[in-house]
Amino acid sequence: MDTQPEWRTLAAEKRQAILDAIPQQWRIDAPIPPAEELRDVTGSNYIHQFLTPREIEITETDALGITEQTTSGNWTAVEVAEAFCHRAALAHQLVACLHEIFFDAAIEDAKRLDAYYAKHRKPVGPLHGLPVSLKDQFHVKGVETTMGYVGWMGTFQGRRDDLRRGEFESELVRELRALGAVLYCKTSVPVTLMAGETANHIIQYTWNPKNRHLSCGGSSGGEGALIALKGSPGGFGTDIGGSIRIPAAFNFLYGLRPSSGRIPYQGAANSMDGQNTILSVIGPLAPTARSVKLLFKAVLSQRPWYHDPLAVELPWRDDIEQETRALIEESKSDPTKLSFAIMYHNGLTRPHPPVARGLRMVERTLERLGHKANADLQQSKAFTADGGEDARIHFGLSGEVPEWPLLIGREDQKKNALEIAALNVKKREYQKLYMEYWNSTAELTGTGRPVDGLICAVAPSAAVTPGGFNDVGFTSFVNVLDYTSVVIPVTYADKTVDVAPSNNEFFGEVDRRTQAGYDAEIYDGAPVAVQLVGRRFQEEKMLVLAEHIGAEIRNG
Amino acid sequence: MDTQPEWRTLAAEKRQAILDAIPQQWRIDAPIPPAEELRDVTGSNYIHQFLTPREIEITETDALGITEQTTSGNWTAVEVAEAFCHRAALAHQLVACLHEIFFDAAIEDAKRLDAYYAKHRKPVGPLHGLPVSLKDQFHVKGVETTMGYVGWMGTFQGRRDDLRRGEFESELVRELRALGAVLYCKTSVPVTLMAGETANHIIQYTWNPKNRHLSCGGSSGGEGALIALKGSPGGFGTDIGGSIRIPAAFNFLYGLRPSSGRIPYQGAANSMDGQNTILSVIGPLAPTARSVKLLFKAVLSQRPWYHDPLAVELPWRDDIEQETRALIEESKSDPTKLSFAIMYHNGLTRPHPPVARGLRMVERTLERLGHKANADLQQSKAFTADGGEDARIHFGLSGEVPEWPLLIGREDQKKNALEIAALNVKKREYQKLYMEYWNSTAELTGTGRPVDGLICAVAPSAAVTPGGFNDVGFTSFVNVLDYTSVVIPVTYADKTVDVAPSNNEFFGEVDRRTQAGYDAEIYDGAPVAVQLVGRRFQEEKMLVLAEHIGAEIRNG
Repeated sequence: MDTQPEWRTLAAEKRQAILDAIPQQWRIDAPIPPAEELRDVTGSNYIHQFLTPREIEITETDALGITEQTTSGNWTAVEVAEAFCHRAALAHQLVACLHEIFFDAAIEDAKRLDAYYAKHRKPVGPLHGLPVSLKDQFHVKGVETTMGYVGWMGTFQGRRDDLRRGEFESELVRELRALGAVLYCKTSVPVTLMAGETANHIIQYTWNPKNRHLSCGGSSGGEGALIALKGSPGGFGTDIGGSIRIPAAFNFLYGLRPSSGRIPYQGAANSMDGQNTILSVIGPLAPTARSVKLLFKAVLSQRPWYHDPLAVELPWRDDIEQETRALIEESKSDPTKLSFAIMYHNGLTRPHPPVARGLRMVERTLERLGHKANADLQQSKAFTADGGEDARIHFGLSGEVPEWPLLIGREDQKKNALEIAALNVKKREYQKLYMEYWNSTAELTGTGRPVDGLICAVAPSAAVTPGGFNDVGFTSFVNVLDYTSVVIPVTYADKTVDVAPSNNEFFGEVDRRTQAGYDAEIYDGAPVAVQLVGRRFQEEKMLVLAEHIGAEIRNG
Repeated sequence: MDTQPEWRTLAAEKRQAILDAIPQQWRIDAPIPPAEELRDVTGSNYIHQFLTPREIEITETDALGITEQTTSGNWTAVEVAEAFCHRAALAHQLVACLHEIFFDAAIEDAKRLDAYYAKHRKPVGPLHGLPVSLKDQFHVKGVETTMGYVGWMGTFQGRRDDLRRGEFESELVRELRALGAVLYCKTSVPVTLMAGETANHIIQYTWNPKNRHLSCGGSSGGEGALIALKGSPGGFGTDIGGSIRIPAAFNFLYGLRPSSGRIPYQGAANSMDGQNTILSVIGPLAPTARSVKLLFKAVLSQRPWYHDPLAVELPWRDDIEQETRALIEESKSDPTKLSFAIMYHNGLTRPHPPVARGLRMVERTLERLGHKANADLQQSKAFTADGGEDARIHFGLSGEVPEWPLLIGREDQKKNALEIAALNVKKREYQKLYMEYWNSTAELTGTGRPVDGLICAVAPSAAVTPGGFNDVGFTSFVNVLDYTSVVIPVTYADKTVDVAPSNNEFFGEVDRRTQAGYDAEIYDGAPVAVQLVGRRFQEEKMLVLAEHIGAEIRNG
């Protein structure tokens, strides 16, 4: 007799349905080696055995490289879609990174794109034939959005009789289709979205494919894991406290958290929708900076401000891109043309040895290039104003009981209108303070301008052990400021060099616990990244600088 | 024995102090004729008697015209400042429109500007030597900000020991000084700012100088009255539900309510600060469209986004200005190049006869030009979420009891975090609906584009009888949408043509009461204006179109 609660049964059924959506020929029959035997499943050491050379060629080309082939008719949309569907299916079997699989619809869409190209001899748009993965917050016709809630199964955002169920598409989805993208899967999230790891009762736990002892990060964790396994050339996540940047960093990817209002959030599911002290934003993740830029710029070309009331009328600004490229060029003869601040810690926590080494590598790179460096930061938070009510409502739909640490509110943290207004004022005051601090660096840089960017860690650790993520302090200050941040992958944790310091001085208890959590053996091989933070709406400049710095780190 | 409460005494003392700040030679000694004898005190029929021909010449030049003289050294900043100080002093004695007078500081500033010009042979900035008036929400060094609260006297926003008292300046004030503007007075507001008339215990009631039976409007009412009397060539008000547009319309002025994020609100006093469902915005008022544009564009040149965290990085976009001018040019040979919607009522209230006639005049003008026309609207509100607590706190400082209708919340309207979030979602849904409606007009206009603008009333009445303003429905929908709106003055109420219709059909009780409130005799001579509403961030386009339409109305 089955004594488990119904929501567990429902979750297991959905879990099985996801696996059942994988075509028989793409299933991995042989047992998958445990993490103890094979940490990294991303490359030739393992996943390649299931793929044809052609599939490897396609899936190991970056998004920009793919669109060069598909928009010129060299590669068909169908062969590209099939290759990524196959690799995504493998990825899911390895690390449980998918919530929805709709490969058949993708192939049909790809066929239509190929037919269009055959007839018109030109692509539908700049993303013609490019597979794009989506975090399970975006509504796509014909498939569910559960966002990890068992209670959302068979509903539209928890409402069973909502006519939009299975029909409605989010604005970003509409725009991606108009750009020629092929949609084929939706990726895993932590239930409530308020966590830096990815776990829910449906997919259970999404592991880090580069080191399967560790988490893929969150909340856009499925995106991070899938793209790291090259089951997707790029995709879209969301970020309210670090949810794009943490998985980007944990999976050795570039990831952009734009300022709010650039990528349309209209029609996407969300937690605590309407909370507008700190807005969640959408941004792309991909293995290369140029691919992140491609996705971002392509969406802007759709003029989202005519379709999303919260989007700002800011097209991609070529002049800023060109100015930034000119600065980089000039800096080759006069390195003081660019200057960066580096923040080694946030006054509360010091990063683990691999992350600290990553920061030093970036600093050395900038020093080699002659760009200057400084230091600072602070933080804040505001996701608990509803006292956790939004999450309680949606858990209540199924009765499920969350089993993972979530950054949601407690009853006693509930706020009223006047208290929320006070929080908004406090946030604005913090923003103003930080703005003036940034302005003041003009007196230090020698460029005549304030620093061009701030380099800092994304998290204290290089990926994280399960249950170990509890510090968004390195990312959430960017959300409070609504600044631009681009994650730049740097290196990998290496147990032979990243030894814990004998030093026993700590900022405090959080720092002590963080340092105690470092285990050189377990973290070995985990990705290390930094974020390049720019001011509000500086996406054009930061993407160009991130590409420059990323390339120079590899040259270094 | 004085039995009145202390706050009444304090208010009377402050009222007297404002009058005492007027130099003896500028005081009006002869009795001022009552409204029954002389409605309109704005022109040669009355105010000119107190001014020299040179003062009349200066004060009856618009802001752009003044800067042409001051930035080229033809007029000194001192003579311009003195002329406006004099006329502002007269204006205040006629209609009680000033909260703060600091003429001495203005003359000192003007002397410094003249010295700068003499030394460098160039102006400090585009507003060199231009007097600019400010609503009493802006902090200016050396003077108080009471915002009409007796309890704010001698404090900084109600805090007695705040070191910013008398020292701090709002960001806009800093930018205006950097542009070369001369600051000399702050204008009256309704206490709490939440009213469409201007009354508080300090200045008591600000009358409409064009028709002293009527209100000057609110909440930027002092601005409207002062500029109508040409005691200022232009100034800045704020608008959360119509507070720039209502006084602009009631005083026959152009007024711009920009989308939020263009003019910096940083460091200005406000009601319900931190309420961010609907943001109050700052915008200019002036007698000519080109002067409104001058003030708006000048502020943007200061790059407020580096000084106000809520400001958006959108400089004045010359390309949009040029495109709009090109559209207007093209429309001369092909009138269908531009199209406008006209809304005669909002489904709840029908405007009074003078306002309806104004709308017909605009429609005839557009028809004459060949530009098309349509219709629509809705509304909403969200200023009551704090249950009136913010106002109660500030009234509580002095114990004063408000005696005018205020649009503030009742205790039972207080909302919590989840309810505010739901309100934010509802607002966004309304915005999206309206956006799609606007998009859909592309199928009707014949231009291949949606309508270029929507023409509608600003209020049901042409100015308003005291205590009669209770309907922000014509303006507040623009705040909910965060759209751009420019008020265009059209004509004046005329008792010989604006007769009440015999028709007795009403939309409902509000409409019936509004229609019953019309009195052709009392309203005779009151200004009539319309607003030209454009989409979010379309300030460049709307300012150019407003200038075009305004000029054509005069030509018509």
